[in-house]
Amino acid sequence: MAGSEAKNSGSKQSGAKKKEVKKETGLGLTNRKADNFGEWYSEVVVNSEMIEYYDISGCYILRPWAMAIWEIMQGFFDPEIKKMKIKNCYFPLFVSPGVLEKEKEHVEGFAPEVAWVTKSGKTDLEIPIAIRPTSETVMYPYYSKWIRGHRDLPLKLNQWCNVVRWEFSNPTPFIRSREFLWQEGHTAFATKEEADVEVLEILELYRRIYEEFLAVPVIKGKKSEMEKFAGGLYTTSVEAFIPNTGRGVQGATSHCLGQNFAKMFEINFENEKGEKAMVWQNSWAYSTRTIGVMVMVHGDDKGLVLPPKVASVQVIVIPVPYKDADTQGIIDACTATVNTLCEAGIRAESDFRDNYSPGWKYSHWEMKGVPLRIEIGPKDLAKKQARAARRDNGAKIDIANDNLVDEVKKLLDTVQQNLFDVAKQKRDECIEVVHTWDEFVQALNQRKMILAPWCDEEAVEADVKARTKGEMGAAKTLCSPFDQPELPEGTKCFASEKPAKKWSYWGRSY
Amino acid sequence: MAGSEAKNSGSKQSGAKKKEVKKETGLGLTNRKADNFGEWYSEVVVNSEMIEYYDISGCYILRPWAMAIWEIMQGFFDPEIKKMKIKNCYFPLFVSPGVLEKEKEHVEGFAPEVAWVTKSGKTDLEIPIAIRPTSETVMYPYYSKWIRGHRDLPLKLNQWCNVVRWEFSNPTPFIRSREFLWQEGHTAFATKEEADVEVLEILELYRRIYEEFLAVPVIKGKKSEMEKFAGGLYTTSVEAFIPNTGRGVQGATSHCLGQNFAKMFEINFENEKGEKAMVWQNSWAYSTRTIGVMVMVHGDDKGLVLPPKVASVQVIVIPVPYKDADTQGIIDACTATVNTLCEAGIRAESDFRDNYSPGWKYSHWEMKGVPLRIEIGPKDLAKKQARAARRDNGAKIDIANDNLVDEVKKLLDTVQQNLFDVAKQKRDECIEVVHTWDEFVQALNQRKMILAPWCDEEAVEADVKARTKGEMGAAKTLCSPFDQPELPEGTKCFASEKPAKKWSYWGRSY
Repeated sequence: MAGSEAKNSGSKQSGAKKKEVKKETGLGLTNRKADNFGEWYSEVVVNSEMIEYYDISGCYILRPWAMAIWEIMQGFFDPEIKKMKIKNCYFPLFVSPGVLEKEKEHVEGFAPEVAWVTKSGKTDLEIPIAIRPTSETVMYPYYSKWIRGHRDLPLKLNQWCNVVRWEFSNPTPFIRSREFLWQEGHTAFATKEEADVEVLEILELYRRIYEEFLAVPVIKGKKSEMEKFAGGLYTTSVEAFIPNTGRGVQGATSHCLGQNFAKMFEINFENEKGEKAMVWQNSWAYSTRTIGVMVMVHGDDKGLVLPPKVASVQVIVIPVPYKDADTQGIIDACTATVNTLCEAGIRAESDFRDNYSPGWKYSHWEMKGVPLRIEIGPKDLAKKQARAARRDNGAKIDIANDNLVDEVKKLLDTVQQNLFDVAKQKRDECIEVVHTWDEFVQALNQRKMILAPWCDEEAVEADVKARTKGEMGAAKTLCSPFDQPELPEGTKCFASEKPAKKWSYWGRSY
Repeated sequence: MAGSEAKNSGSKQSGAKKKEVKKETGLGLTNRKADNFGEWYSEVVVNSEMIEYYDISGCYILRPWAMAIWEIMQGFFDPEIKKMKIKNCYFPLFVSPGVLEKEKEHVEGFAPEVAWVTKSGKTDLEIPIAIRPTSETVMYPYYSKWIRGHRDLPLKLNQWCNVVRWEFSNPTPFIRSREFLWQEGHTAFATKEEADVEVLEILELYRRIYEEFLAVPVIKGKKSEMEKFAGGLYTTSVEAFIPNTGRGVQGATSHCLGQNFAKMFEINFENEKGEKAMVWQNSWAYSTRTIGVMVMVHGDDKGLVLPPKVASVQVIVIPVPYKDADTQGIIDACTATVNTLCEAGIRAESDFRDNYSPGWKYSHWEMKGVPLRIEIGPKDLAKKQARAARRDNGAKIDIANDNLVDEVKKLLDTVQQNLFDVAKQKRDECIEVVHTWDEFVQALNQRKMILAPWCDEEAVEADVKARTKGEMGAAKTLCSPFDQPELPEGTKCFASEKPAKKWSYWGRSY
């Protein structure tokens, strides 16, 4: 198979030759995940037909294979927030400079990345207009208008849209792109208590997207003051970790904005006592980054590995005819298998292309990460069975036709669970508990996700950043986990040796 | 009721006084549809809480009340195109100038309206980057890359996204805005025959959106050479008509692009005979304009009128308590009614707000266009019934509790059908068949939708435009209907007196 060939490419010459062959068939990866992670990732997202590179740097085409995953996640998240009485809306892409700059801290966080429209046709605009990097400043002037009394609260809106952040550092498909798709929820409450509750309800949905759909283990926690959302009160997040690069990745964030924006945008209401009060606000978002994290965590040297719950094709059925065998019988058995699975609500397809060999098709669908392959050949036909091959571990299982649906469902559940378990085990192996600066530096060099007691002082985080600056990027806090280990009296901060206030995860990050 | 009060506003003083009251309660319209259509429209979309005006001209906020309609239409259209094996994807918002300008005719059609990003943060971009006005030139370089052989065809993609056309003429919410939401389908086929078939399949879906969902009658037809899509082969459309303004409105378009873009972008494939061939392409789109057309057609002096199929609230249940009546019993009956309806799949809500009177609530939900109101008072409670009021014609019907679901379903179907029938009758009354220039001018002055025999020459359409230029805007072809009346031998063109080749609809348009 193409994937394993790549491992053996010998001299430069034979390597080049193989590359040519691969270009021809479009199969196989030339980079291994363990050796050359960045190139491996680019190759996987392109060869699996999720991404096409675009002629503007930092912009990527999301092909149907990726878009289907986004839609499946949407199909979970959107009804969940509707149950919470959150309503969808759509605010404009454009922001006028006056509004954008209203919240100082906030705009400072985004200003360098804001794209500006200055012309239409050949005419210069009177004032340049910004493209939303996020919509707090777009929306909140209208929240101020719409919210008058306590009966107007809570106001809970969400939008599915594109946002633009013209970043110059290392664009990576899904993970860091100049335009991306996301949902952004923006809610306003009469009390901090209600806002606090919602922050965690949404964070739990984000955990479920990662753990239950993408089979990616995440840690729920609170961001440090330095890493929180610009202009907000506090930020919670789900943090994933990429063992191969030893980098954390912020999976999704649920912010309590407190009353800071309410103050700037004058979002006031008359409370039940007839007094003027200020709202408490949240904002929360997850983006197409989710897909990139999934690719990084599960992908292997044969390509993408899709968790069944987000795979647009869960089962690919491939006929394996022999010269003198009953080809039509095999084709019919494949069609029947697909129909039976589809009727049972399983997303199954067949690959009947007559210009590719079964072996080529195996590699093709492995590259695309389809969780389960079903092969049907003359022997299977005779035995009234099909042979299933798992994408996650390559295991092969014969399934009697009579048990098809039950067995396939069970297998898909097993694959889903196994992907999560394996990912969690790998992630857990990367977690290192440290107590001293020396331990910290050593763990960082070993690309660990570091759990350390911390004094929770901003200056100390700044200092850690400065002291770890280098080619690989500085270390910073990932989050302070909600699930805190015991912190014995007298424990010192690993960096400042002041009394530790909490445990925090530290590491390099995307 | 507020709506009818507006009709009687007498002296300037009392008019002003009423306006103040209305501002206070947020109810009622100050403009009548028949008298002052433009202002009426703006008032309806704002007061019904569909639209909020934005601080950038030509951009509008789509509030949940509008967004829900968009989502319901999406819930119909998206599965339909998926049945046709069309897959969703997402291409970038940005286009590089080189690509944008590749198809000359096409870019000329859009160039004056293109918004340009020239700066990020404080840095000038090396090359300005355009924001997509539509995505032909964004997508087709990649179609060229992805399509190699006949097995890669058909390629059928769609995206749901925002597009930007920086127009300067008269922005109108939904109808003409600088940013809008749409779907755009882009497909490539091996043969013209396949492309032709798809053009009409999609057009039929657009007809269904208008007629079956929005209850707006439309005419299917072909655009003239002058009015067709820039760079395409031919354009089909569904055309609606707004009787109050006497203007046609292009409802949605399904274009056959022929091979023009294929040539410019070199989208070639090896056909089954091993010969190099060029693909045939289509593109097709409908936008949030659909919602504006619906508002214009059905709205009345009490506000919005929503067809049940697109109403996010189909039934609003309002308690009508009396001082000495069993208020809790009424509230319970309302709750039971809502629950029964929701369980039957009807979108029902109650309005239990205690700071508004039933009358205020009637006006409020009339303004928002809810198709059916159910009132429950002490008498209804005693008689085990509810009173329903239709939004479309004000008719009131008592419904026995035992028949609730059946009767409400029947009523909603009736309202849906009646809205269409009434709209069709009004539209049909506006259609005027003319044979001569004088008849044409007279009909145009009467704001008709004019059906006329035409020689089908571009120069003649240009001439008609020039001769009818004026304050109201020039007349042009709306479409040549697929459903052609008989054209007797020797019939002359109304404008050129040359032999007529077809019947075409003419008029002013949005």
